[in-house]
Amino acid sequence: MFESAELGHKISKAVWKKEIPGLREGLLDAQLDLSQSKKFPVIIVVAGVDSAGKGETVNLLNEWMDPRHIETHALRELTDEEQERPPMWRYWRVLPPQGDVAVFIGSWYSSPLIENVYGRIKNAELDQQLERILRFEKMLCDEGALVLKFWLHLSKGEQKKRLKFLENDSDTRWRVTDTDWDHYKKYDKFRKVSERMLRSSSTAESPWTIVEGTDPRYRYLTIGKAILAAMRQRLDALEPPHHEDPIPPILPTIDNLLILQTLNMSKKLKKAEYESDLEKYQGKLNLLTRHPGFKKLSVVVAFEGNDAAGKGGNIRRITQALDARQYRVIPVSAPTEEERDRPYMWRFWRSIPRKSRFAIFDRTWYGRVLVERVEGYCERKDWMRAYGEINDFEEEMVRNKTVIVKFWLSITKAEQLKRFKEREKIGFKRYKITDDDWRNREKWDQYELAVCDMIDRTSTEIAPWTLVEANDKNYARIKVLKTLCERIEKALES
Amino acid sequence: MFESAELGHKISKAVWKKEIPGLREGLLDAQLDLSQSKKFPVIIVVAGVDSAGKGETVNLLNEWMDPRHIETHALRELTDEEQERPPMWRYWRVLPPQGDVAVFIGSWYSSPLIENVYGRIKNAELDQQLERILRFEKMLCDEGALVLKFWLHLSKGEQKKRLKFLENDSDTRWRVTDTDWDHYKKYDKFRKVSERMLRSSSTAESPWTIVEGTDPRYRYLTIGKAILAAMRQRLDALEPPHHEDPIPPILPTIDNLLILQTLNMSKKLKKAEYESDLEKYQGKLNLLTRHPGFKKLSVVVAFEGNDAAGKGGNIRRITQALDARQYRVIPVSAPTEEERDRPYMWRFWRSIPRKSRFAIFDRTWYGRVLVERVEGYCERKDWMRAYGEINDFEEEMVRNKTVIVKFWLSITKAEQLKRFKEREKIGFKRYKITDDDWRNREKWDQYELAVCDMIDRTSTEIAPWTLVEANDKNYARIKVLKTLCERIEKALES
Repeated sequence: MFESAELGHKISKAVWKKEIPGLREGLLDAQLDLSQSKKFPVIIVVAGVDSAGKGETVNLLNEWMDPRHIETHALRELTDEEQERPPMWRYWRVLPPQGDVAVFIGSWYSSPLIENVYGRIKNAELDQQLERILRFEKMLCDEGALVLKFWLHLSKGEQKKRLKFLENDSDTRWRVTDTDWDHYKKYDKFRKVSERMLRSSSTAESPWTIVEGTDPRYRYLTIGKAILAAMRQRLDALEPPHHEDPIPPILPTIDNLLILQTLNMSKKLKKAEYESDLEKYQGKLNLLTRHPGFKKLSVVVAFEGNDAAGKGGNIRRITQALDARQYRVIPVSAPTEEERDRPYMWRFWRSIPRKSRFAIFDRTWYGRVLVERVEGYCERKDWMRAYGEINDFEEEMVRNKTVIVKFWLSITKAEQLKRFKEREKIGFKRYKITDDDWRNREKWDQYELAVCDMIDRTSTEIAPWTLVEANDKNYARIKVLKTLCERIEKALES
Repeated sequence: MFESAELGHKISKAVWKKEIPGLREGLLDAQLDLSQSKKFPVIIVVAGVDSAGKGETVNLLNEWMDPRHIETHALRELTDEEQERPPMWRYWRVLPPQGDVAVFIGSWYSSPLIENVYGRIKNAELDQQLERILRFEKMLCDEGALVLKFWLHLSKGEQKKRLKFLENDSDTRWRVTDTDWDHYKKYDKFRKVSERMLRSSSTAESPWTIVEGTDPRYRYLTIGKAILAAMRQRLDALEPPHHEDPIPPILPTIDNLLILQTLNMSKKLKKAEYESDLEKYQGKLNLLTRHPGFKKLSVVVAFEGNDAAGKGGNIRRITQALDARQYRVIPVSAPTEEERDRPYMWRFWRSIPRKSRFAIFDRTWYGRVLVERVEGYCERKDWMRAYGEINDFEEEMVRNKTVIVKFWLSITKAEQLKRFKEREKIGFKRYKITDDDWRNREKWDQYELAVCDMIDRTSTEIAPWTLVEANDKNYARIKVLKTLCERIEKALES
């Protein structure tokens, strides 16, 4: 795999001088087209062997390009705000908007590589981490990002020479650390693991480009040209003709037996029982949040449901039990400009809570496979891939000890009509029924199908859906509170 | 000052039962009007004596209101990301958008109070801090926020009783810490300093409401009603008739001698000298960023100037000297939706760099007193107060060891015409001259006046403007680099 990067590639000064002006002009040009059209974001990963010139390469890239639309991220130690979130949070928070370029030195590949070389994670775990990275990059590409990955390689002899050279110059001696020599001693192991990593993370959409790091001019020119070619190609590409992608449609079940229809919608709870249960479970929830183990957890509560199913009321029954300082309720409506410029899931990554905090979502990331699907706000291929992206998102959170509790509040069509009419009668503006509500109601069956698909595809062991029979508000509220308590309790026990 | 809050205010259960439903309804109603109209943000500060019930009060408020549009912030220990920025950064980053309510427990008043009581800051320093807080709150009010401040008071006897009571109940014992008793021992001192603090931070726009904390029902009802009344009043207020405020206009100088006109615009630098100076100062700048003391600094570079004055080229000469990992260039154009929903300076607070980092602004917070003033995008009273707000912003940064270097790149009207025409001739899109550019040019004199006012009002000892004669690009670039080096050098020495 690295053979071609040990051939001693070199670029003469004459060729360099001839090539550079055009390359720089081209890069600036492409960047201007990009920042004006805002067609897509560019994400460049520069990784590789120690002392192969990653820093210098990135510096030169920055020199060549318009610094107003490129930003470099060399994320090292985790800040404490990062430490309390899933490992990928630090990358999500700096994802560039459409029209901009972000360069990552090291990136999400550093930790799996080093952890494996030092024997802190096994190969199986390495593969799992790489699999997650691949899914992350696939999501970026699917969302339109141009992802370019460069691996700077040095042969063992070359790396030693480089370290010695830096060490012998008093100006650069400080750059060679014990870690560098330690990595050098593990060169063979690094090489082996890197190869495994590059092999399994090279995809058609975001392949690695391995670049020999020995000769700076060769290195710079190769990477610069590769970036230019990729940007130019994407910028100049015609919009593909719009057609439904060859993705098999989701078909209605042939026997029309949908999971939602199996709910016993007549479940009820009497007022007296409700009141005593409410006190009981609110008290319990409050106690759970003061359990010493709760400091290591965070909780994400996701509410979806039919219009008028009572999301707001349920959320209030939860927040009543909590200290106001430890939760945030996030109402999800149309995304803001900054959110629209980034991958769909970005707005939800933004709201991932710190340890011992709750984030309660009133409507969620499932909008993609519900309203966006039914109303045709995105293409089928986009909502089809969303199921996987959602599962990935939830998995990242669960790995970080987040308890994810997802509720679908279900009411019958008749009950909804009753509530709509009641609300119209009360005429109280807080419960205003809009034309949208009536329109959604007309699509009841389509929504029902989308909900059932959603449950089938995203009710996972780590983040199951709880279907709540919500025709009776008392019954629903207690079921929600009880479920939430049980899930947190279980997490505290494990 | 606290006399009225030691009278033993009480609300009977009967009154409470009668009042509460209407109050809750009213609050929800006001909140709905607010979140739909997005007229203004509400910022509620709940401070006061230990164990006076701040937490409970805020919890009840949250219970009464719609949790989707209220968020509570109890900021205690600084995270390391906060530690590297000015103390007010943590509050700026969570300022609510228009339409939302934010509750701060403790807030920006906690630290000055405690520091003074414990003798770590003198009265003079306390007053200074309060003065800065006042200016911050004034800015919030001027930007349209409704700022409500509540101080929960307990008499000395009452506080002791409360602490004992909590301590004697096994359920609440954990809430009483040594710090609480230590604060109690300092009750008299706390009372004295609090009084000083409340007195000097009670303004017409954001007065303190002192509330006796002894009786929970009294406390809750008083605060709830005060919030409702204030919100309702603002929501129902008619838009004031538009008229220019009685603020004295800024007059042109009577002798027409403007500071910009005193520049010697014929200053030049020969190519050879430029090249050797460029190398010299870029090298120097790079060295300075590797100085051990640089870890404690951060640098903000602000570029303003006539159109076509060469901001981009100057920025590139700076970034060339830096490691790509340590700077961010922030091009300032129209604010995003999230930015428009918050005070004008919010977008700049967002970009304050961490320690040992550069933030380089291509156009800046001075837009308010330049383009917004000249083009009439905001009212005179708004850009008039901006001078003070800008000085405050810069002062907060300087206090946090940020080196602020501000450049006005000045070219003559003739030089601008030459550059516009050249650019049109080259026809290269990167230097596209837009209609806007020609329009701005027509307002040359108005801009010149605005620039001179800006310099007069914001060139401070801690953050002076450097006027750069930029008709000759070589001369300008060296002056910028040299100034930047000198400023950082000076900061490293001090």
